[in-house]
Amino acid sequence: MAIVKNEKITSRDVDFAQWYTDIVKQAHLAHYTSIKGCLVFEPYAYAIWENMQKTLDKMFKETGHENVYMPMFIPESLLKKEAEHVEGFAPEAAWVTYGGQNQLEERLAIRPTSETLFCDYYSSIISSYRDLPKLYNQWCSVVRWEKSTRPFLRTREFLWQEGHTIHETAKEAEEETLKMLNIYKKFFEKYLAIPVLVGKKTEKEKFSGAEYTLSLEALMYNGVSLQSATSHYFGQKFSKPFDVKFVDRNNKLQYVYQTSWGCTSRMIGALIMVHGDDNGLVLPPKIAPKQVVIASIRNDENVLNSVNLIEKILKRANIRVQCDVSDKSAGFKFAEYEMKGVPVRIEVGPRDVANNQVVIARRDTGTKEIVRFEDIKKYVLSLLNSIQKNMYDKALKHANERTYTCTTLDQVREIMETKPGFIKAMWCGDVECETKMKEIRGMKSRCIPFEEEHISDTCIVCGKKAKNMVYWGIQY
Amino acid sequence: MAIVKNEKITSRDVDFAQWYTDIVKQAHLAHYTSIKGCLVFEPYAYAIWENMQKTLDKMFKETGHENVYMPMFIPESLLKKEAEHVEGFAPEAAWVTYGGQNQLEERLAIRPTSETLFCDYYSSIISSYRDLPKLYNQWCSVVRWEKSTRPFLRTREFLWQEGHTIHETAKEAEEETLKMLNIYKKFFEKYLAIPVLVGKKTEKEKFSGAEYTLSLEALMYNGVSLQSATSHYFGQKFSKPFDVKFVDRNNKLQYVYQTSWGCTSRMIGALIMVHGDDNGLVLPPKIAPKQVVIASIRNDENVLNSVNLIEKILKRANIRVQCDVSDKSAGFKFAEYEMKGVPVRIEVGPRDVANNQVVIARRDTGTKEIVRFEDIKKYVLSLLNSIQKNMYDKALKHANERTYTCTTLDQVREIMETKPGFIKAMWCGDVECETKMKEIRGMKSRCIPFEEEHISDTCIVCGKKAKNMVYWGIQY
Repeated sequence: MAIVKNEKITSRDVDFAQWYTDIVKQAHLAHYTSIKGCLVFEPYAYAIWENMQKTLDKMFKETGHENVYMPMFIPESLLKKEAEHVEGFAPEAAWVTYGGQNQLEERLAIRPTSETLFCDYYSSIISSYRDLPKLYNQWCSVVRWEKSTRPFLRTREFLWQEGHTIHETAKEAEEETLKMLNIYKKFFEKYLAIPVLVGKKTEKEKFSGAEYTLSLEALMYNGVSLQSATSHYFGQKFSKPFDVKFVDRNNKLQYVYQTSWGCTSRMIGALIMVHGDDNGLVLPPKIAPKQVVIASIRNDENVLNSVNLIEKILKRANIRVQCDVSDKSAGFKFAEYEMKGVPVRIEVGPRDVANNQVVIARRDTGTKEIVRFEDIKKYVLSLLNSIQKNMYDKALKHANERTYTCTTLDQVREIMETKPGFIKAMWCGDVECETKMKEIRGMKSRCIPFEEEHISDTCIVCGKKAKNMVYWGIQY
Repeated sequence: MAIVKNEKITSRDVDFAQWYTDIVKQAHLAHYTSIKGCLVFEPYAYAIWENMQKTLDKMFKETGHENVYMPMFIPESLLKKEAEHVEGFAPEAAWVTYGGQNQLEERLAIRPTSETLFCDYYSSIISSYRDLPKLYNQWCSVVRWEKSTRPFLRTREFLWQEGHTIHETAKEAEEETLKMLNIYKKFFEKYLAIPVLVGKKTEKEKFSGAEYTLSLEALMYNGVSLQSATSHYFGQKFSKPFDVKFVDRNNKLQYVYQTSWGCTSRMIGALIMVHGDDNGLVLPPKIAPKQVVIASIRNDENVLNSVNLIEKILKRANIRVQCDVSDKSAGFKFAEYEMKGVPVRIEVGPRDVANNQVVIARRDTGTKEIVRFEDIKKYVLSLLNSIQKNMYDKALKHANERTYTCTTLDQVREIMETKPGFIKAMWCGDVECETKMKEIRGMKSRCIPFEEEHISDTCIVCGKKAKNMVYWGIQY
């Protein structure tokens, strides 16, 4: 059964950017404040964030990481200790210059990221290889004074987690860098139902101060790619200027090897842009605040009793369920929960109750089925699984259809102007060629995959000998 | 069996302040940074905080509250909208004046508390009584540029939750104010094992901008009192300047009635100062990150097998358990987990295993018992309950012993100079008399209890007619 388009939002295919902001507003995800790029996370968005947090936090703890909390302030001198890092982050830092009535002797950046704070801490708690590794994580907000902003995708303050670890050897730290990338990959694919590319960022696109950066890249419905999580290997690039030393197994002083990795509230934006449709959000069951809504159609006593009974049965099966027995019209209720992307809707009306049945609608396809009362629990459990799987498969199909292999810039240009997506193309490794690609709708390299295909022998830009196969795309 | 004093920390009765900071350091709770009053919450302190969060968050959600996230920045003009509020908070705000390279047109305070942000949000989402109540909460950090600081108790940045609600009627908002105070009371008594006084703050001591403030007051081991949580009733004091209006049931425009309530990471300080002893922290089982540590004494295969087996049994009983099978000496291990205040220690040595038994030590009393292998689970479950109860009873006994009824300032002075605590005394209601009390070791009114006793007819300071019975104390 086809879903009728919700009139409150612009059509996704007509104006994707407007469609996106319409959903942010109509699904009550975020509210603008008077400060550009600073959002109120409304209860529904925050509940999605809490589910993301809970799942990731468990994965981090299971792999031996401990949560800590660092101060939000970084003295300017501390931020400046690693040269590339300060170059990358100082230009967009927010600066505190007054504490109460008094001008501060040294201005303080609000953390744009906390490598410098962690290094400062490490240097005072580490002395021997016996103290290693340290595997830390923190959940907090960070501030980057961006010029152009967009809800969830690019905001001046955003929520995130940042993992920070130090190790005895380069090998161990590199393994950690990859391990955490794979945890993000699993989280995206299994929980968010979003397929991702993984690989290494180019020198130009890596994190300021890293030896290298690994990243997760996801493709949105409109073919724009989103850097969705990153994992950085620092080697000793921070530990040297911050003097984070330990006595190793041979009784020699050594600098530690370091990583950091993070993902942010932009994942909420990814959920909207990968799965959403013309009726609003579509949430994967594993991350949806409510997996099932039971909506009454006319409220007689029998209907209310049935709603309560179904609620009890589903809650006992650990399903996150919500009831709506308000006197709003059925159409109004349906539209509201479609907008919010609740995966399953159970409709209970007087006639259904009389027939010992309910109507169950799935949000992802819009199809409905009549289900006998005694089968509800089993049906819903199976339906939630099948929705989760279907959403992933659909997103993967779309990403595959929008992943192109190119050998000329003309091909790239034509694709990016009609049906953009990921472009696989060869590259000589030269930053000038990388920059040249920006001329096509601001394209950037997304990543160099761990297993590169051989597409041709020559760089797509300059025609010289190719070094790598790169994924390219337009980015948020 | 008596506990031998840990040499790493000062004795509690010799120098309480030093004892406190020694524990903060030796139990690896917090680490100072180069910015005064900004701490690193180390993993152990953060794990305690997470347990507090989890418990309170559940209580908040069960009473219908939803989590949100507001930006950390408050434009100066917004902070200034309510006159008393700005007077209370602006002098200690940290101010952001630069975003990247550019000076901001208006400087931004980092939230010292978020009433103004919530009001700004309310004003754009509320239109009818049907939109009310709104019951929000957020977990975040706030900044107050304090002059003198002390780990957890008074820091420039601290972690907290702030609940913010709006209601249709004054009655409903006042009920909410009291309800949340009682939730805090339950949390302190049942989970933290800390008995508390509850009551109303005097006009002088209330929150800047509130109609009135209710508070929880706890007594530390040294007789100093700690304001431990507050719940504020605002009436329409914010809703008028912020123009938070709705159409009521009689179709008339009305301003909403508002509350806010909060508790902070200073609760970690309270745990230390109420329950700690000369061997370190003593944590109540309900909030301890690990409730049981299983420590091996010499690691032969039988010992290791037994440790694993006991761990499995206890985990299956939902007990938070940690094993230490390192080759550190038994004495070293015992001292370490005593310092961390782990409620129960199970000692497993070769002889114990041979005899099919273990030694179980409780942290709160230091007593040990031999327990047969097959009885461990039952014994530990019961022991955890009895420790939780004993800790509360002990703290209550101490608070009762240190609560005095006074009718003259000489009595107060003598008590506060020898064995300080809570003073119950009559007061005329005059702010001058309240201020006069500060001459005795900086004493302040703690609260006016909901049920006042009649101690005498006259104010303890001026001798005029008494209006209230007040609890007084020295404060952190």
